[in-house]
Amino acid sequence: MSLLLEEIRHNRVLWLLVFIPAVFAVKGIEPEAHTLLFVLALLAIVPLATLLSHATESVASKTGDTVGGLLNATLGNLTELIIALTALRAGQYTLVKASVAGAIVTNTLFLLGASFLLGGLRYHIQDYNRTNARFQTSLLFLATVALLIPSAVAAPDFVEGATFMHQLSVGLSVLLIVAYGLGLVSSLKTHRELFGSTEELVSDDAPWPMGLALSTLAGVTVLVALVSEVFVESVQQAAVAFGMTPAFVGFIVVALVGGAAEMASAFSGARKNRLDLSVGIALGSAAQIALFVAPMLVLVSYVLGPTPMDLQFWPGAVIMVLISTMTVLTVTSSGHSTWFVGVLLVMVYLIFAMTLYLLPPRIQ
Amino acid sequence: MSLLLEEIRHNRVLWLLVFIPAVFAVKGIEPEAHTLLFVLALLAIVPLATLLSHATESVASKTGDTVGGLLNATLGNLTELIIALTALRAGQYTLVKASVAGAIVTNTLFLLGASFLLGGLRYHIQDYNRTNARFQTSLLFLATVALLIPSAVAAPDFVEGATFMHQLSVGLSVLLIVAYGLGLVSSLKTHRELFGSTEELVSDDAPWPMGLALSTLAGVTVLVALVSEVFVESVQQAAVAFGMTPAFVGFIVVALVGGAAEMASAFSGARKNRLDLSVGIALGSAAQIALFVAPMLVLVSYVLGPTPMDLQFWPGAVIMVLISTMTVLTVTSSGHSTWFVGVLLVMVYLIFAMTLYLLPPRIQ
Amino acid sequence: MSLLLEEIRHNRVLWLLVFIPAVFAVKGIEPEAHTLLFVLALLAIVPLATLLSHATESVASKTGDTVGGLLNATLGNLTELIIALTALRAGQYTLVKASVAGAIVTNTLFLLGASFLLGGLRYHIQDYNRTNARFQTSLLFLATVALLIPSAVAAPDFVEGATFMHQLSVGLSVLLIVAYGLGLVSSLKTHRELFGSTEELVSDDAPWPMGLALSTLAGVTVLVALVSEVFVESVQQAAVAFGMTPAFVGFIVVALVGGAAEMASAFSGARKNRLDLSVGIALGSAAQIALFVAPMLVLVSYVLGPTPMDLQFWPGAVIMVLISTMTVLTVTSSGHSTWFVGVLLVMVYLIFAMTLYLLPPRIQ
Repeated sequence: MSLLLEEIRHNRVLWLLVFIPAVFAVKGIEPEAHTLLFVLALLAIVPLATLLSHATESVASKTGDTVGGLLNATLGNLTELIIALTALRAGQYTLVKASVAGAIVTNTLFLLGASFLLGGLRYHIQDYNRTNARFQTSLLFLATVALLIPSAVAAPDFVEGATFMHQLSVGLSVLLIVAYGLGLVSSLKTHRELFGSTEELVSDDAPWPMGLALSTLAGVTVLVALVSEVFVESVQQAAVAFGMTPAFVGFIVVALVGGAAEMASAFSGARKNRLDLSVGIALGSAAQIALFVAPMLVLVSYVLGPTPMDLQFWPGAVIMVLISTMTVLTVTSSGHSTWFVGVLLVMVYLIFAMTLYLLPPRIQ
Repeated sequence: MSLLLEEIRHNRVLWLLVFIPAVFAVKGIEPEAHTLLFVLALLAIVPLATLLSHATESVASKTGDTVGGLLNATLGNLTELIIALTALRAGQYTLVKASVAGAIVTNTLFLLGASFLLGGLRYHIQDYNRTNARFQTSLLFLATVALLIPSAVAAPDFVEGATFMHQLSVGLSVLLIVAYGLGLVSSLKTHRELFGSTEELVSDDAPWPMGLALSTLAGVTVLVALVSEVFVESVQQAAVAFGMTPAFVGFIVVALVGGAAEMASAFSGARKNRLDLSVGIALGSAAQIALFVAPMLVLVSYVLGPTPMDLQFWPGAVIMVLISTMTVLTVTSSGHSTWFVGVLLVMVYLIFAMTLYLLPPRIQ
Repeated sequence: MSLLLEEIRHNRVLWLLVFIPAVFAVKGIEPEAHTLLFVLALLAIVPLATLLSHATESVASKTGDTVGGLLNATLGNLTELIIALTALRAGQYTLVKASVAGAIVTNTLFLLGASFLLGGLRYHIQDYNRTNARFQTSLLFLATVALLIPSAVAAPDFVEGATFMHQLSVGLSVLLIVAYGLGLVSSLKTHRELFGSTEELVSDDAPWPMGLALSTLAGVTVLVALVSEVFVESVQQAAVAFGMTPAFVGFIVVALVGGAAEMASAFSGARKNRLDLSVGIALGSAAQIALFVAPMLVLVSYVLGPTPMDLQFWPGAVIMVLISTMTVLTVTSSGHSTWFVGVLLVMVYLIFAMTLYLLPPRIQ
């Protein structure tokens, strides 16, 4: 416990934990103050995501390489998963899908691009393991195909549409999870030597003892779930109040908040010329959301959701995911980066953000 | 003749030849037994395709490298061509187009993917000639552009549409055949040293003497044509009986049956760590169908078909061909493969197969 | 002045200067002879473009590397810019957009492809600096995303559409110009060593003295503007008279005429085995048009045009730009070329040209 307190004193992001009681206080006193609740919930999620990420890594580092890799590969995006599950239970499938697509786009374009940019401002040319980048990008590519095909073959106005789309979504979800699992076998077992040593990919912070890590994991998960509920309830009205479109909130704001912890690690890795860490976080996270979190949400919606959720995304979101994947494919084929490569990735992200910000709400 | 009989005894696939008389017997006795006829015709085409493939290779191996290469490059997909011509004569243009697109997709994704997978389960990392893969893929890319453009620029509801589409289809077909011819000049003549030695690319079986090869070629071509006729007549009703969509039958079933012989060679090459053979068969076959068979069918439809056929494909098929080409572009850029690369290709194929299987018939 | 006359005697293209007085004579005598005026204006623009290009290079070579590079990077497509500005002032936005998209496609496919083909007919394999090709292509890719997104997210029939599209177009234009500027910083300043020595990229002709260069620049600019006005006025009727669609004229004819000077330099570079010169001209020019000329036209339309112009292009044009970018991405990844690579690029160009030529006018 004192270790936890020391961590909080040491890491300034964790001072934001003060916003957690604030959320629940305001929620109790003024349950209709949606804009305020939205901002407080956003601020409260950032330190919780940081704690969750550190706890997951601590557990992973204690359990040996394979189990640890597996843990990281399934719980690495726990914050995003909890937020999405909360929105799922509330039946807000548009928000769920926007946040999934947004997390993929944000990780591949903004997280990777800003890492290249920050690293490139300090180092002339940076190298990274091309094999891992290519591996994660091919997984992403597979997921992009799975998102693209339902929208591509389905005419909007046919009667059998809904049944077809639900059957197809379940089938595709199973395929994606199987592919993700086989990918883990390949990268953690049969061909692990191609992916570089795993030590390099662990972040700097000293791991916590197992007991602290597990109890933090449990406690913080509950807190994230509670805060997410406030967040999901208030997001629509808050978006209107700020003049933001729902698409912008789901795609950009939620994705940036949910990924705050990964961002901190990725940027710090890039500034220390350990670009493999940044690339691993950015693309590994995107692949995990696309091939594990999203299909899981589809399957779980049959149990938790008011109605089943399908994998048919808004065509604009599919195109953005497709472009992100192609951009990363193009940019990472060389295995080197300079600051300008980072600028290119961030520019594509800005094009998306600007479009979503300006988009009239009726369209999406 | 005794050589042919010995081959039949040696190669178990050829025992399926017994289904040829069965097809014609059932056709005579019970001409309306469509489902049975469909299954028998499928089973009868497999050994015929094997014989055709062996005969073509035997003729090719006797005629010197350039003429042999040319023969292989034009008759290598004779089975697919005959089936398509039979459907063309019957005016079944949807089936023709589905089988052409399906053959491209099946060769690039399933044939190549299963080769990588089978080879990768035995060998840790396999290498192949990247130049040849890149060459065949660029040809495929060109054909994909030619299939994409008519659908992309044409609005569905304009009067001049039909004339425009026919003029464009003839023009594009001529361009594709010219490009294919120039590609042969480049790979067999001016830059053959880049494509590896041709001996390596010949399969294991001992070539037949010229007389046997030529008479087999002639006789089996006639048999394939006759069986294809039964097949094309029965395919629609059989599809309904099996609960398969016509798109699934054309895209997946016909393509797998027509390519059975190539599959056997490609898989055996991969298991012997001769991946250049597998890549050459898979991508060479796909390029040949896209740049030679498909345009030939368009031109021939002016002579044989009830009305001219155009190059405008169902948008879903165009997208699948486009995705297949992009997948292969991505995957073959390194020149290495592991079992997981095979999994990725097969997974994309499964996504397509599943979508087509579930697709309500009215859509396509 | 005598230097200018000597240049004219030496360079046969400049003999076409005789068509300038012809344009104005016919315009005065027979202002309705649109077809004749169109042909004369076309012929008059070619030598003017050559002079403009030589004058820009001469100024650039006198002002030191960075300023010179900057000059070339902004005035290198002065002819295209003037023609587009003339069409802009006349409110002919369809022609402006077609000529912009056409210039990108013509530079990436025809100019580069014909250079590879011409060079490859003389040399077995040619090498070029892959880094520069990749850099220019990523810029092009960014611009393609900016063109693609507005068409992709916008439904055609919504009321707020026009406002949204104009805001988005201005925002995207500013982003593209900033990206272009940062690209210049990267290629001319911070990472110039990756792009090869600049001397190699200067063409053969001896530079003119500063005075001559500057006065030629000024005088010829005025002449191009005047001739362009005749050209833009006559292009519609002439297209009808020649049986060409407006899309074909804007995309193909204007782009070939405006790029005549660059073509001469690029082809001559390829024949001398200096492929870096050809690649630099082709892709550099395309990137400049996409990231500098097109966004400038959008911004300038607020001052010069009858109404603001947006960045929403005809979907067919967007797809052609996208395919061009992907083709170049694929083809330049190796850094080598043979004649057949040139054939592939030219074939894609011919597919586009044929489609636009046959396209019924009502569609575009």
